[in-house]
Amino acid sequence: MQLLQNKVREEGIVLNGQVLKVDSFLNHQMDPVLMKEVGREFTRLFQGENITRVLTIESSGIAPGIMTALELEVPLIFARKQKSLTLREDIYVEKVYSFTKQESNEITVSKKFIHPGDRVLIIDDFLANGEAAFGLARIVEQAGAEVAGIGIVIEKAFQPGGRLLAEAGYRVESLVRIAALDNGVVTFA
Amino acid sequence: MQLLQNKVREEGIVLNGQVLKVDSFLNHQMDPVLMKEVGREFTRLFQGENITRVLTIESSGIAPGIMTALELEVPLIFARKQKSLTLREDIYVEKVYSFTKQESNEITVSKKFIHPGDRVLIIDDFLANGEAAFGLARIVEQAGAEVAGIGIVIEKAFQPGGRLLAEAGYRVESLVRIAALDNGVVTFA
Repeated sequence: MQLLQNKVREEGIVLNGQVLKVDSFLNHQMDPVLMKEVGREFTRLFQGENITRVLTIESSGIAPGIMTALELEVPLIFARKQKSLTLREDIYVEKVYSFTKQESNEITVSKKFIHPGDRVLIIDDFLANGEAAFGLARIVEQAGAEVAGIGIVIEKAFQPGGRLLAEAGYRVESLVRIAALDNGVVTFA
Repeated sequence: MQLLQNKVREEGIVLNGQVLKVDSFLNHQMDPVLMKEVGREFTRLFQGENITRVLTIESSGIAPGIMTALELEVPLIFARKQKSLTLREDIYVEKVYSFTKQESNEITVSKKFIHPGDRVLIIDDFLANGEAAFGLARIVEQAGAEVAGIGIVIEKAFQPGGRLLAEAGYRVESLVRIAALDNGVVTFA
């Protein structure tokens, strides 16, 4: 997606070989016109997949998620992240490890909102090691529903998440793929 | 806002005299068409206020916030909530107490994204005691910017936040105002 690639080139800040900061348009401040275009692009990519739900994770997935859900005319659900929680009957729980923050979180979704027969599109802002996407996919599968695809705004293609998700049989569409962040420069795949 | 009032009546669950659960369309699952209408309504209410930024707080403020920012054609910033953090030069920090969760959080916004001269519209999903809205307003004022208004999706008008914010001189517009949650029934103001 050219518009997004331009934005990454103009406003992305390479903190080191692993971390790209995009807090001016995606993670903290958000560009709503760009988010709308992101939603349109995911809709174009996954049309024909009979999506019935969009699932994302708080917080940075919500803006691209809601714009995609709007275009697809289906509800958005966002998984909540918690440090740990007491077991409850009414929620699906999965453990997700964040390599960036070096901590585990439990992600939760109410059982009310995903059902057998649902075809769920997973949306997230970043893909690196794939931990969050796999956690969301396991929740969809716990619910007896199907992962119709995984839409990623920015994939760090030099990390293994994209390959691992593809090997697990998921269709992954990343709007921007980054091959390297060496020497302070973003190289696109 | 009639559409929203209907949704509260049909899908809101009164947990007790203080707590209304709206996780089927606002807090966990989100109705994107309703969120778009919410954004349109805030834009109608605050047009003429020369808004330059929309400010909200993660996570449930992001969907109504991004839809409002899209209609107003300005950026959205969402404040992050943290348990506590080491002091940093590059962020504004305010302490916010949650009566619901009975805990204090620090909310943070990068100094890069609000500037003197900005006219900021604060958006949040709920207004009860006004703690979050006051915290966001203090951040806007720390930045030397102006609070152009406060837009609330659902105000619990039997709690003091709306009155306190008005007394402090802020213009508050709530799309739905709830007078009471007694006996499991929502009474609108």
